[in-house]
Amino acid sequence: MESRPVIASILTIGDELLIGQTVDTNSAWMSQELNEIGVWVHRRVSVGDDREAIWQALDEESRQAQIILLTGGLGPTADDITKPLLCQYFGGRMVVDPDALANVKHIFEMLKRPLIERNLKQAEVPDVCTVIPNRRGTAPGMWFEKEGRIFVSMPGVPYEMKGMMKAFVLPRLLAHFQPTPVVHRTLLTAGIGESFLAERIHEFEWMLPKNIKLAYLPSYGMVRLRLTGRGADAGLKAELEAQFNMLQQLVADVMVTNEDQSISQVLGKILTERGQTLSSLESCTGGYIGHLITSIPGSSRYYLGGGVAYSNALKISTADVRPETLAAHGAVSRETVVEMAEGIRRRTGSDFAIATSGILGPDGGTPEKPVGTVWVGLSAEGRQDSSHFHFRFDRQRNTELAANHGLNALRKFILG
Amino acid sequence: MESRPVIASILTIGDELLIGQTVDTNSAWMSQELNEIGVWVHRRVSVGDDREAIWQALDEESRQAQIILLTGGLGPTADDITKPLLCQYFGGRMVVDPDALANVKHIFEMLKRPLIERNLKQAEVPDVCTVIPNRRGTAPGMWFEKEGRIFVSMPGVPYEMKGMMKAFVLPRLLAHFQPTPVVHRTLLTAGIGESFLAERIHEFEWMLPKNIKLAYLPSYGMVRLRLTGRGADAGLKAELEAQFNMLQQLVADVMVTNEDQSISQVLGKILTERGQTLSSLESCTGGYIGHLITSIPGSSRYYLGGGVAYSNALKISTADVRPETLAAHGAVSRETVVEMAEGIRRRTGSDFAIATSGILGPDGGTPEKPVGTVWVGLSAEGRQDSSHFHFRFDRQRNTELAANHGLNALRKFILG
Repeated sequence: MESRPVIASILTIGDELLIGQTVDTNSAWMSQELNEIGVWVHRRVSVGDDREAIWQALDEESRQAQIILLTGGLGPTADDITKPLLCQYFGGRMVVDPDALANVKHIFEMLKRPLIERNLKQAEVPDVCTVIPNRRGTAPGMWFEKEGRIFVSMPGVPYEMKGMMKAFVLPRLLAHFQPTPVVHRTLLTAGIGESFLAERIHEFEWMLPKNIKLAYLPSYGMVRLRLTGRGADAGLKAELEAQFNMLQQLVADVMVTNEDQSISQVLGKILTERGQTLSSLESCTGGYIGHLITSIPGSSRYYLGGGVAYSNALKISTADVRPETLAAHGAVSRETVVEMAEGIRRRTGSDFAIATSGILGPDGGTPEKPVGTVWVGLSAEGRQDSSHFHFRFDRQRNTELAANHGLNALRKFILG
Repeated sequence: MESRPVIASILTIGDELLIGQTVDTNSAWMSQELNEIGVWVHRRVSVGDDREAIWQALDEESRQAQIILLTGGLGPTADDITKPLLCQYFGGRMVVDPDALANVKHIFEMLKRPLIERNLKQAEVPDVCTVIPNRRGTAPGMWFEKEGRIFVSMPGVPYEMKGMMKAFVLPRLLAHFQPTPVVHRTLLTAGIGESFLAERIHEFEWMLPKNIKLAYLPSYGMVRLRLTGRGADAGLKAELEAQFNMLQQLVADVMVTNEDQSISQVLGKILTERGQTLSSLESCTGGYIGHLITSIPGSSRYYLGGGVAYSNALKISTADVRPETLAAHGAVSRETVVEMAEGIRRRTGSDFAIATSGILGPDGGTPEKPVGTVWVGLSAEGRQDSSHFHFRFDRQRNTELAANHGLNALRKFILG
């Protein structure tokens, strides 16, 4: 069986993408989902709410791709360009879809809002498409077929698009193309730069069989390594597993997890398995660590909470940090973060605690403690530790790095 | 003077974009910056680390755009495709750039890491480009000119790309093309849906002069409205100002700010001007409100900190919530969030406090308190208030909505 993948293009429509007010998160999510079913996205294109630009992109993308997925241009304030254009492009005429109309009416009833003309127009679709129900909003999706190509038009609202993809588009694409299956294995490393990792596993990569590929996926100071196998033969899964085992051995000392998980998922899993609890007291990270922890469903089982102690007074009152410690070493010091962690652990009665203090910029640095200096304190019954980092980026990136490195230090601390 | 804008295409390169592991935030930032100097991005294209795909994209994009900005494909683990391809595309040969080499060596010295062959190759560039210094990393940028088109190749790391754009690319593009100036005025609304806003200002939009455009930019339950004027004539700025004043009057009751600011920036400004302080105690938002507040530089002047109280025990111990209140009304209730806000304000000694409690999903809902139920409590000396929301999205979106609506409720509470 030939292992040529099915090729897709993603076309996102909307002036908001071109003026840069919207970060396109749809394309990344869609690419991941398509990959899972063995469809390869070879191009992603964004154009504005412009007739000619959309028409041209449809022509161009359908020359090379078998699937063209469109998002955007369908909302109630869209300039009424995309839908009429699609109608003309596929040679149909606009009709009211009774199900879509019922859906619009139902949503407005539920919201107890008056229905206006602009909203009713959402129920109109070209008569040459298969209507994709939208259970999460008013704009229906549209499925077109032309000259062996599939074109799917969906709203740009991520939540609505995702609902349509899961319930309708992905199963139908799978049935229509029966793409060559794809298998992935992913692991997460921390504490080693991309180029040093590459140096270490270069030979491994070079020896990989042709139907297995390695990808480096860096994020926030960590690097994901992903092996992707493509093919229908029965041996592929075993071969991928064997290669993945070898890869794990090569990076054993820097590996965080051998699953496709974030550091907060890994931590959650460890704490859940052990039936232990965690609290946090953040200064420089300002709640971001708490946010990462609580972004995992079910985190209330192991995360008790904690605090954001920006001011020295609050470090003293919420975690019993000694004023003498602050006076002698400053808020950004090993001594302070360890007392913060100890204090919040005692106060909350958790098994473990993490604390941060640092200077994330752009201002507030000194020659001894330049911008980017971060201390992380860790505490458990009868045990303390601390880590020291120095980041060289802007405030946002420094916050992300401090939180992720802090959580990884916590993981190591918990494990021993 | 003709007001035809200079046209740019953004071309992002990298398999990681097509398998969906990286969300492309570069394009949005670049589009914003280009817009500021009067350059209009008419297309954004992503292709993989694939010779043919990159070559074809360069050909296609340069047919319509005067500026083609490339990011990605230059890192130490890139597959050595992009740079040699550019060298060939522009008819040059590879040479070592002494400044780029010195930069690589300097960075590795600073990091106290051994320099490997792979890193040295970063200093090679085609001899037909102008080298763009990279003060934030090892890969230099490249500026090419061909048949009246400008091509700029930069690394995909956002921090490095932004440094090059600010210091080199934007000033040079400005000098080279002298684009028609662009002026923006932006305001932020909250508490009104996009379609109702559109209904209200439809006529205003219709009456706008041809050189002023209105854009709707929705985010997290709020909608930004932006007027953009394009042209060199002296009257434009005054005309834009007049139209912006009219727009402000039309949305006065739902306007958060008449500047291009986020809700946490607006709050920061209000508190700084008043010399007042804030604390927070978060349950369901798990630190995200603290994160939004502290993502503003200088927030340590008005934000004292607070807590994340996920467990009932912590709500009691950090904010003196009465066990009877929790027993009678539950953690997700008006009574509890108001006591949380009161307690954290008293404990921290802040002027204002905000507290949240809710069920963000996917689990934990009940018929009386379904997933998406959120209570926000507010407290000031002698004054309390609460708000109640019901969100219908996934955990992440519900968190963002709860935090942003909560901060807006706080803003209104502070102001009156």
